[in-house]
Amino acid sequence: MTAPLHDNRPGTSGARLPDTQHGMRRRNLSRVMHAVAAHGPLSRAAVASRIGLTRAAVSTLVDELIRSGLLDELGPERPGRVGRPGSALAVSARGPVGIGAEVGVDHLAVCAVDLRGETRARAVRRVGNRGRSPEPVLRELAALVRRVCDDARGAGMTPAGLAVAVPGLVARGTRTLVRAPNLGWHDLDLEPLLLSELPLTVDNEANFGALAELWLGDGIPEDFLHVSAEIGIGAALIVDGRLLRGTRGFAGELGHIPVRAEGPPCPCGGRGCLEQYAGEVAVLRAAGLEPGEDRLGLLAERAAAGDKAVRRALRGAGAAMGIALTGAVNLLDPEAVVLGGALSRLAPWLLPSLERELTGRTGGRACGVTVSGLGPDGPLLGAAHSVVRAVLDDPVGVGAAG
Amino acid sequence: MTAPLHDNRPGTSGARLPDTQHGMRRRNLSRVMHAVAAHGPLSRAAVASRIGLTRAAVSTLVDELIRSGLLDELGPERPGRVGRPGSALAVSARGPVGIGAEVGVDHLAVCAVDLRGETRARAVRRVGNRGRSPEPVLRELAALVRRVCDDARGAGMTPAGLAVAVPGLVARGTRTLVRAPNLGWHDLDLEPLLLSELPLTVDNEANFGALAELWLGDGIPEDFLHVSAEIGIGAALIVDGRLLRGTRGFAGELGHIPVRAEGPPCPCGGRGCLEQYAGEVAVLRAAGLEPGEDRLGLLAERAAAGDKAVRRALRGAGAAMGIALTGAVNLLDPEAVVLGGALSRLAPWLLPSLERELTGRTGGRACGVTVSGLGPDGPLLGAAHSVVRAVLDDPVGVGAAG
Repeated sequence: MTAPLHDNRPGTSGARLPDTQHGMRRRNLSRVMHAVAAHGPLSRAAVASRIGLTRAAVSTLVDELIRSGLLDELGPERPGRVGRPGSALAVSARGPVGIGAEVGVDHLAVCAVDLRGETRARAVRRVGNRGRSPEPVLRELAALVRRVCDDARGAGMTPAGLAVAVPGLVARGTRTLVRAPNLGWHDLDLEPLLLSELPLTVDNEANFGALAELWLGDGIPEDFLHVSAEIGIGAALIVDGRLLRGTRGFAGELGHIPVRAEGPPCPCGGRGCLEQYAGEVAVLRAAGLEPGEDRLGLLAERAAAGDKAVRRALRGAGAAMGIALTGAVNLLDPEAVVLGGALSRLAPWLLPSLERELTGRTGGRACGVTVSGLGPDGPLLGAAHSVVRAVLDDPVGVGAAG
Repeated sequence: MTAPLHDNRPGTSGARLPDTQHGMRRRNLSRVMHAVAAHGPLSRAAVASRIGLTRAAVSTLVDELIRSGLLDELGPERPGRVGRPGSALAVSARGPVGIGAEVGVDHLAVCAVDLRGETRARAVRRVGNRGRSPEPVLRELAALVRRVCDDARGAGMTPAGLAVAVPGLVARGTRTLVRAPNLGWHDLDLEPLLLSELPLTVDNEANFGALAELWLGDGIPEDFLHVSAEIGIGAALIVDGRLLRGTRGFAGELGHIPVRAEGPPCPCGGRGCLEQYAGEVAVLRAAGLEPGEDRLGLLAERAAAGDKAVRRALRGAGAAMGIALTGAVNLLDPEAVVLGGALSRLAPWLLPSLERELTGRTGGRACGVTVSGLGPDGPLLGAAHSVVRAVLDDPVGVGAAG
């Protein structure tokens, strides 16, 4: 009987810091950074009051963060307040940046986000990656990463890490893409192919999309189910502000919840999975359209133009999603379901039938369904912000390595 | 954008300790207690090496725990080792005890568990509670609690808290039973009816059953889905060694995952829910048996005797559970599914069809299904141990209040 004593893992960095003087100092440095990043500019006194430490303790921490180039002192606050004027602190615009990258089925994208959360550089390449072999695709991605890093360094910033979003399952704690059916890749370790000198993390695009929603979304709760789709249908679960990854890293396979137990067979081995009713291939077939590039865009366009077959197909997909989500909501009791990624464009035609099923089947007790404001940019932003948050979570450790 | 900075919640106590000298001392006291409870008797040196603190630091903590009556010094270890003999430390047998209680559909039970995890007192009353009004039931439970507490005090121990397992949904962070269809109770605050002077927690029996499995089960991983049944079918999710409660505390409603989208209506508002195929009422109907007391026991008996109708009914229930679990496993990627509570008795006849569906529908990639060794005692033990762990998690705080 061993006990999970304390879980000090901050954000997504996963580091379990020892409960010592040294560990406490590192955690408090992180608290100062998070407070200033989220609410700055702030005076030392305001930081102290926000994080519940004495002003003297905060001053020591702040001095270390200024020396490390992570915080800037903006000069004295404007007069008019009682007492000695404090100097406002802000997160440095010339410190570390997080590099996010995305391998999409029809594009590659890279961006650099600074500690304030601002995108400072960006590169995108439209290219059909389906069926291409991984080597040239990742060579092209590496070239985009180098270009964005050079831009960031040219502006005085230091890339602190690279996070790559991929459209498939990634084994937990590795950089190995286990299956990406829509690219045709499997069991692929990305690290040797990316040849990046930066610390590298790789994760499913649905996971990064959900984290982006958590960190950047407007009015998003700390418990939600984030549903996204490109060709397949993925989901990611945020519970108490953390991503639920699953034992192997494969949690969130909403697309393979059985919607009709005796339905058509699915390549996963199941029958009547949600993807057989609401995946791109199924919806195109129901709408009488052929597969091709940017079919979700085409569906949105036709639906907006009033195409009856397309609207009927999306209604059916929404109803199937409502049935699968009834199971998910009963199991997880989230505060909200968020439709993100490419699904956000189709929401107007999916939502009515989805909500009808979900509300009807839960006796009106289910949570609400909302649509992401981040749209298709979610996974890329989530990747870059995951690096930024790793810096904020352990500022002197990661910052020093950058 | 506010960040969930650090999650210091130890075990189930939910206390977020401040990251100060004082908070650090409390956490380290807890580490010492957990180390000795899980692995004791241990010398000070062995504790120090287990938790990564210096021996001097550990000695100070140990002295405080001895003064508080939480640790006992057993005297010098037997000679034969090199160096000065250390004195072995053990968790006190005369310290705090956790009081667990259970309101079942056909019984009431209370037990006292000490910090070593041993049951020190116990009282059970067989009584059909279905349809009774809550007041007399809880008066009887309160009398059993008093009797067990008196027994514990008579043996020199101090009840530190009372945790009550109930067969229904409890609103998160409250003592309010929102719905218990099998008792016929709803929206019931248990606190005024129990009149206990002890700190009180109330939770769903499936949640306490899963926690018991996590804390006491043999070879149980830190990520699993615990499925239990009395009349309905409940589940509880343990993720990274924590219970996933859901926003309102209603997570784990496996019984209301749609198994056949157009199936028979369910009182929950849905159609074709798992309970319509594998709940007690459905299984009895399929087996041609009437409802009554201890019907799961009757089913087990008949199945063991080779009754074909009963075996067919359990096969059907197992298949429906396999379909619902396919959805749950795709969504959560647990390391194991554990059948607990009354289900463990029926496992021999449920498992073959359950595993056939689950394995077939996941292409053989699903986790294994195991059967709990705790059986029907799980929820009661989980309740008592939740109090014990709250003491171990914050020994001087809770211990002092006891």
